[in-house]
Amino acid sequence: MNSYPERLLEAMKRKSSPVALGLDPREDLIPGDCFPAGKRDPSAVAEAFFCFGKRLLKVLAPHIAAVKLQIAFYERLGVPGLEAYGRTMRLARELGVIAIGDIKRGDIGSTSEAYADAHLGGLDGRPGPFEADAVTLNPWLGGDSLEPFFARCRERGKGVYLLLHTSNPGSADLQELAAEGGGRVYERLAGLIAGWQGKGGESGGYSAIGAVLGATFPEELRSMRDRLPRAPLLVPGYGAQGAKGRDVAFLYGDGMRPHLIAASRSLAFGYRDKGLSLEDGAIAAVQEMKMEILG
Amino acid sequence: MNSYPERLLEAMKRKSSPVALGLDPREDLIPGDCFPAGKRDPSAVAEAFFCFGKRLLKVLAPHIAAVKLQIAFYERLGVPGLEAYGRTMRLARELGVIAIGDIKRGDIGSTSEAYADAHLGGLDGRPGPFEADAVTLNPWLGGDSLEPFFARCRERGKGVYLLLHTSNPGSADLQELAAEGGGRVYERLAGLIAGWQGKGGESGGYSAIGAVLGATFPEELRSMRDRLPRAPLLVPGYGAQGAKGRDVAFLYGDGMRPHLIAASRSLAFGYRDKGLSLEDGAIAAVQEMKMEILG
Repeated sequence: MNSYPERLLEAMKRKSSPVALGLDPREDLIPGDCFPAGKRDPSAVAEAFFCFGKRLLKVLAPHIAAVKLQIAFYERLGVPGLEAYGRTMRLARELGVIAIGDIKRGDIGSTSEAYADAHLGGLDGRPGPFEADAVTLNPWLGGDSLEPFFARCRERGKGVYLLLHTSNPGSADLQELAAEGGGRVYERLAGLIAGWQGKGGESGGYSAIGAVLGATFPEELRSMRDRLPRAPLLVPGYGAQGAKGRDVAFLYGDGMRPHLIAASRSLAFGYRDKGLSLEDGAIAAVQEMKMEILG
Repeated sequence: MNSYPERLLEAMKRKSSPVALGLDPREDLIPGDCFPAGKRDPSAVAEAFFCFGKRLLKVLAPHIAAVKLQIAFYERLGVPGLEAYGRTMRLARELGVIAIGDIKRGDIGSTSEAYADAHLGGLDGRPGPFEADAVTLNPWLGGDSLEPFFARCRERGKGVYLLLHTSNPGSADLQELAAEGGGRVYERLAGLIAGWQGKGGESGGYSAIGAVLGATFPEELRSMRDRLPRAPLLVPGYGAQGAKGRDVAFLYGDGMRPHLIAASRSLAFGYRDKGLSLEDGAIAAVQEMKMEILG
């Protein structure tokens, strides 16, 4: 079984693409023809979420390395929403797209095992109901809370992205607190991550244990990349959230690297402003995005 | 509409009980007669989880103020598991038991809104598919990530418990880091929580914004209670995880206070060691627990 960074890099090279499509479906932005005739109950909206994801995935699969599903939007719809989440996840993997569950879970002991079973599959080989290739995790509860996920990196070729430094105002509250002896709390976390990386699968100099870093702090993105040279990075915030291709191009300097740039609204909802179909809008946007990043 | 601390305290006084039943269902510990004849697929296990919760809730409702459902164990089973989670949540509330979703979610902006809609209901009055009276939250992403939940405290009489200091070894990694200028990171978080509390509903000197604190650090429990006098506390770790009644009795000194002591295994699985039925074991254990804590 290949390690996560190896599988990811293979998909990126095959498609010449560093792009992860962010699926953050919102009822008011999805094309009307995705909804079962005239219905807007949770089951109908969930069906529309699946339709929306399927239409984007089918047309974008040759152009995107990965897709990141934001589970909260599906969870809001309850059981039908989570069913649509699982179906979309399976479809992405069938289409050869690396599927990332943006779940930001974090708990301890047997509870963490339960989440890992659900989202990365069981250590006994059983598939998970929401099985992804990688997930995002919240590190606040510390190393032992992450161990069940690290075990799945080793045993099942999975990956994790730890929330290192987010770009919202509240990142000042805990992440940016000054730690005694120098540096910020998130910089200490970077040191911890470096220490944990041996616990994940690895190949080609990259670990399966990566980090989420906002593209809206380009200087920091560079310094964290230098500090965690083995971490695959997941960089959200491209496009609608303000980051530009030039802010992240350095990540790929002399060739493809297993770092993903995620874009949600600019790929999935740009069609509305441009008067295009969902499919045509997404293809135009992904090609522009690849050009901006890779030149 | 009454505030969360008011509703909680009313339930505690009515039942003379500071106990929260922790529902952490595990397939191997549930009585065999909860399973549909001979079946062990995810739907059958989910049905057994619901049966298990229902049997405990029906017999314990007069003796417990609250129930805390650990969503991870239901999520592991996929869609049928989450359906059982929602049904158990609704049943608890119908039985007059304060229902707490142990979800430990944490995200930003519209994503946080989506989680809040799912677990505490919409600001437009729409019920949430997994609606609880209160939820546990992860504070790593900071104040703005919690705002949608605070809004539901104010507008819908809901409560939140922020993960302040956990009792697992990994709590040393970030929570216990020394902060520049003195104190640990979790102590700084206590200061932040104090500042946020005005944003929740309140009554009788208590805010709807509380904290999770492990019972396995009794001295600290006391110091955090003194530091956050308006915070309802949720204290897990009673019984099987080592904490005793005497460690938490001080919280109730001269009368009932809106602090909950959660016990999972000792209430729900103690029957096995004692050769009792699930129901008889749970009643014996809850009475012993109330006696130990309240005297």
